[in-house]
Amino acid sequence: MSTASRHHSEDVDIADFLGSQRKVIDDHLGLFLPAAEEAPPIIHEAMRYGVLNGGKRLRPVLAIAVGTALGVRFERLIHLACALEMIHAFSLIHDDLPAMDNDDYRRGQPTVHKRYGEAIAILAGDALLSLAFQTLSAMPSEDHAEGCKQIEVLQLIARSAGSSGGMIGGQVADITTEGQDFDREQLESIHRAKTGALITASVEGAAILSSCSGAEVSRIRDFGRRIGLAFQVVDDILDVEGSTAELGKTSGKDQAVRKATYPALYGLEESRRMVRVLIESACDDVSFLGSRANILNELARFISIRRF
Amino acid sequence: MSTASRHHSEDVDIADFLGSQRKVIDDHLGLFLPAAEEAPPIIHEAMRYGVLNGGKRLRPVLAIAVGTALGVRFERLIHLACALEMIHAFSLIHDDLPAMDNDDYRRGQPTVHKRYGEAIAILAGDALLSLAFQTLSAMPSEDHAEGCKQIEVLQLIARSAGSSGGMIGGQVADITTEGQDFDREQLESIHRAKTGALITASVEGAAILSSCSGAEVSRIRDFGRRIGLAFQVVDDILDVEGSTAELGKTSGKDQAVRKATYPALYGLEESRRMVRVLIESACDDVSFLGSRANILNELARFISIRRF
Repeated sequence: MSTASRHHSEDVDIADFLGSQRKVIDDHLGLFLPAAEEAPPIIHEAMRYGVLNGGKRLRPVLAIAVGTALGVRFERLIHLACALEMIHAFSLIHDDLPAMDNDDYRRGQPTVHKRYGEAIAILAGDALLSLAFQTLSAMPSEDHAEGCKQIEVLQLIARSAGSSGGMIGGQVADITTEGQDFDREQLESIHRAKTGALITASVEGAAILSSCSGAEVSRIRDFGRRIGLAFQVVDDILDVEGSTAELGKTSGKDQAVRKATYPALYGLEESRRMVRVLIESACDDVSFLGSRANILNELARFISIRRF
Repeated sequence: MSTASRHHSEDVDIADFLGSQRKVIDDHLGLFLPAAEEAPPIIHEAMRYGVLNGGKRLRPVLAIAVGTALGVRFERLIHLACALEMIHAFSLIHDDLPAMDNDDYRRGQPTVHKRYGEAIAILAGDALLSLAFQTLSAMPSEDHAEGCKQIEVLQLIARSAGSSGGMIGGQVADITTEGQDFDREQLESIHRAKTGALITASVEGAAILSSCSGAEVSRIRDFGRRIGLAFQVVDDILDVEGSTAELGKTSGKDQAVRKATYPALYGLEESRRMVRVLIESACDDVSFLGSRANILNELARFISIRRF
């Protein structure tokens, strides 16, 4: 974390918040994941390797930040947070496969299929997706209202991961448009699905678990959509600007395979301007939360200035 | 269906029952699956191709038979039934991949990756697993008790599909023991996980949705475990005996790759005897249901005499 982000707010230290939340999330992921010794050990080693590799934990941090601001009990929230990270890790393991993006490195380490072989990588991804739903279904609910919200969140997460407008559908659109011409609408629809759906579900899921009204959940969903899109535009910008060492993955790759990206369509300057506009609108979305929105504003700004 | 199976019972025609149930299940699967035209179409075509290909529908038929015998509403049961078939189809698509069993044909047709390519086959499997949990979370529950049962079933299905003693764990154990020596305990543990867990979950899930006592759910789980194991032993026997044409997949393949099988360990005669003993015990398990068990007994016997 740079010190720049600390100047946005007097009362929230975003670097401290992120550090402490990541620690809590990693500890709980370690407990939800089967032990590496559990039979058959190779898949449990691969699952732990694919998840516990020092990721940014953006989705679980967002879920915990929104849920905490809205008064959701931590014992419930942590199930949502860890399930989101398992689904994210599953998607990275499968996206890296030779039949997909064929990446050898992820966060500076060999990808799961490079380390454990393709078959185990496919199965480890499958098992993480399944474990995510097991984790969501193990969320403690004390009454009918809590049970209903739990089921609603389960459905939201399944839809957001899925093929119809969700993460998997976005990945399909992404690989099938490689090397093709694309317009703004196509580009936005790919990103909205591929990374946007799960990021939006992180904040919307936390809001559903709270006592928010439907209108308030909808404002928080808008917040999620905007920061999700901003996150992807920044990702595209970093792919053009960043070095492989900084990113922990191969940079310039999007351009090499002619992937649909924002800088390719609008140029770097306009892409950066779009990020700023999206972040400002996102902060407006959650202004109804008053001072409880401080941490959300900080997170939104952090997304726009991140370097990795 | 041979006429032999009709002699076991006066009041149940198992061929008619299976035919009508499969029709109902296929119709509902067609509705739960996204339309083939829905964007991005290629994955939805691949998902429909992988599911709507004339399978036996054993798991959904078992869920509906048990649930109907126990008075579970059809509108709830059909969500469980279709989710089970989606998970089964997902597992076949991924098992057939070049990095796994590398099969070109399934039920007499090109496998999903032969038809749509590896990337889409991986993603179609992923999307089916996700859609299964979406389907379970969309089960209509009218009160707190129904909501609790729905969540319990969700957790059961996620665990039964997963890596710890579930289907995915069984597949890992299966591929990692290929070409190795194995004993009875290992063999049974592989089968219990690989095919047994989801078959057991089919009947146990339906029992959980009913007003059965815990002890009764446990008897039905035993029934599921025994027919699940019998199903796998029959599968192994058919692989030795059957022709490729009858099976719709490459026969004799288990032996060629030295897979852990019952005939390999016990011989054909002893394997056939084991099936008979398992089916008789399974029928005992559900004898507490009186005449409501007729259809379950018929299904158990059908599993033991099937030729495909």
